[in-house]
Amino acid sequence: MSQPSSATLEKITALCKRRGFVYQSSEIYGGLNGVYDFGPLGSLMKQNIRSAWSQAMMKANDAIVFMDGSILGSYDTWKASGHIDNFSDPMVDCLNCKKRYRTDEIDLERACPHCGKKAWTEARMFNMMFQTQMGPLADPTAMAYLRPETAQAIFINFKNVISTSRVKIPFGIAQIGKAFRNEITPKQFLFRMREFEQMEMEWFCKDAQAMEYFKFWADARKAFYQTIGLDPARIRLREHAPDERAHYSTACIDVEYQFPFGWKEIEGIAHRGTFDLTQHSKHSGKDLNVFDEETKSSYTPTVIECSVGVDRLFLTLLFDAYHEDIIEGEERVVLRLNPRIAPIKAAFMPLTKKQVDPLYQIYARIRAAGFMVQFDESGSIGKRYRRQDEIGTPFCFTYDFESEKDNTVTVRHRDSTKQERINIDDIQQFLEKITHE
Amino acid sequence: MSQPSSATLEKITALCKRRGFVYQSSEIYGGLNGVYDFGPLGSLMKQNIRSAWSQAMMKANDAIVFMDGSILGSYDTWKASGHIDNFSDPMVDCLNCKKRYRTDEIDLERACPHCGKKAWTEARMFNMMFQTQMGPLADPTAMAYLRPETAQAIFINFKNVISTSRVKIPFGIAQIGKAFRNEITPKQFLFRMREFEQMEMEWFCKDAQAMEYFKFWADARKAFYQTIGLDPARIRLREHAPDERAHYSTACIDVEYQFPFGWKEIEGIAHRGTFDLTQHSKHSGKDLNVFDEETKSSYTPTVIECSVGVDRLFLTLLFDAYHEDIIEGEERVVLRLNPRIAPIKAAFMPLTKKQVDPLYQIYARIRAAGFMVQFDESGSIGKRYRRQDEIGTPFCFTYDFESEKDNTVTVRHRDSTKQERINIDDIQQFLEKITHE
Repeated sequence: MSQPSSATLEKITALCKRRGFVYQSSEIYGGLNGVYDFGPLGSLMKQNIRSAWSQAMMKANDAIVFMDGSILGSYDTWKASGHIDNFSDPMVDCLNCKKRYRTDEIDLERACPHCGKKAWTEARMFNMMFQTQMGPLADPTAMAYLRPETAQAIFINFKNVISTSRVKIPFGIAQIGKAFRNEITPKQFLFRMREFEQMEMEWFCKDAQAMEYFKFWADARKAFYQTIGLDPARIRLREHAPDERAHYSTACIDVEYQFPFGWKEIEGIAHRGTFDLTQHSKHSGKDLNVFDEETKSSYTPTVIECSVGVDRLFLTLLFDAYHEDIIEGEERVVLRLNPRIAPIKAAFMPLTKKQVDPLYQIYARIRAAGFMVQFDESGSIGKRYRRQDEIGTPFCFTYDFESEKDNTVTVRHRDSTKQERINIDDIQQFLEKITHE
Repeated sequence: MSQPSSATLEKITALCKRRGFVYQSSEIYGGLNGVYDFGPLGSLMKQNIRSAWSQAMMKANDAIVFMDGSILGSYDTWKASGHIDNFSDPMVDCLNCKKRYRTDEIDLERACPHCGKKAWTEARMFNMMFQTQMGPLADPTAMAYLRPETAQAIFINFKNVISTSRVKIPFGIAQIGKAFRNEITPKQFLFRMREFEQMEMEWFCKDAQAMEYFKFWADARKAFYQTIGLDPARIRLREHAPDERAHYSTACIDVEYQFPFGWKEIEGIAHRGTFDLTQHSKHSGKDLNVFDEETKSSYTPTVIECSVGVDRLFLTLLFDAYHEDIIEGEERVVLRLNPRIAPIKAAFMPLTKKQVDPLYQIYARIRAAGFMVQFDESGSIGKRYRRQDEIGTPFCFTYDFESEKDNTVTVRHRDSTKQERINIDDIQQFLEKITHE
């Protein structure tokens, strides 16, 4: 088993704000609840997460194509998907103070926690989709929705993709993009947000092979988290009990991570049967079947879905990487992020003013080669190491009086704090090897 | 001067649909006007555009950091920016058929083009921001907006970034993300959309240096378009006349591209003065000034903005790349896309069944190295070349009877259709050199 984590939600949240990973959105105006902006380090790290996922999808199977659907969607799409009718939470209002609660977060036998009176309305359903009006006329036909999940863009484009991309069953469509849910009570920082980002892949196959693929993807997706550095002892697969699953779903597995506050889902792998394509075919009147050359008959493909939230994974990676240890008698916070995920790959630190120029030239060359690196010249060397440790920078390069003689620099490793000499001409290759999988 | 282009909006639109670059959003339900989904080739090409822009920003100046702000924004943000009050088009309704028009697209002295009657309402202002409600209560404080531009997320986080990222004036904040405008009449395919994507960089500097930076960025941004392959003869800078500029803007230059339908803006470089930071400081009550160590006084930085639309640039690149020519007596359509921008970098084409296995192994190795490549084995070789030409694939590799003997393949160049032999072990390096800048 793993060591108990020293990470807490408070520490992670504070670090994110202090070092420019994440800010609350519209903060100077009091903030938007459940909505966040990603700062310089956060946006780089998010991009590394997206890129690791895309690369993993690309390598898992060369029959996976990508797409990028719109956020705005029509009433018909969300009617067919079931979201108009079912994507709701039951709510009650306090008749006295008008405060609104989800029924599952409040004991209706007791008084309102806000005003202390006990006077509840009947429970009513509250749809969690964000609505807006499209076009100049405020009539019902102009109603549009911010997508509450990215998957439906894949299903409604299934026929478009298959008829324009030369893919054949079995194949997958992968997508990364924002989704929106009007949560009543967004909570735990990036864990449950109103505006978030999903990475979803829908795998279309014959029904006879669906369970085999379901198992393949559950294992492949679990393995992915190790390749991006999560502690394998904190990752598990948990199969849903039949009463946890949607009525159309044959099987569902969560990839869970052990947070200090318990095991929580970070990805869902779902056998969705033919539900989605059947619904869209029914509502649109379009034939979404494929023709089987072998049996000379047409059929609706079965879907296996892999769905993960970028922001929740971002938070998970920070929880997993966060460590406090003692280095040379001094306490430090260190993010032991995998080098592929770390926002800054290396810092270049001159020890004296004289070394600024030669080291800057090395730094500039590495940056021009496309590596996100920093030049850090202010404060004591110890202070600079702490600064880079706290944001997860895997390597620090220092140039010293020997460097001019033997064309080497010192590289200091974040986790072990060990140092070694490396030839200046080998720095780029060193970083390439360690930051690419 | 350039040759007259054979591209038309109709041809580009048809190609985009036929080959899976772009589909209309919610197409199976009749479509959402002015909203598009990007298919397998389109999403790859868009990603290449984003990546080229980010790399160019990273290389232009190492004092540029990135961020990723939310789409949902508060009333206060858009009140301060001026969008609540001024981001509007004047509109009239036909009293007879209720159809609504922008006043600048209709002659109010004449009859309604839809119903033929002449009975207009007074002109009224129509705000182009998409509104939505956040949280469970439908009261005015719950009003939120989909951002009509990404820039404001940068301004409202200016103090957050400067206090958490160790940047100093002058520096820039760059951002890529979606924005939304409820256009009355979206038009010309990707040219004017309701949901679109922006790449914006705000450069913060002292006012004394602002004009110098303004010129620097105008030249740098113009040069960028050549590095991604646009015909330099079709690119120009056009300075705005004083009456074209916003009241707070000291200078504004458009990068324009010569479309078949005329010169149109693809990027705007604007000297925005201190307008944005001053407005947000006034409305939020927060101090957004910086302290100048030299003069020991604080000041509001001046902003130079570079703003380009991903989708419009996508369309521009297709217009520029689209050519029809005659190869071996046969007409072909070819997209002469820069290899960095092309969605597929190379296709691997076995000539006979026997060659499938050895060539597939080469293809799989190149794909595993992270190159987006295709294996294409169906149809005559001529037909396969045409297929790849039409989507802009720069290189096709064929394996033949000599390959086994001398470890070489043939590489065929898209634009010249010239062929040459290349060692199999050199393919990856060949692609690296040509697809990276």
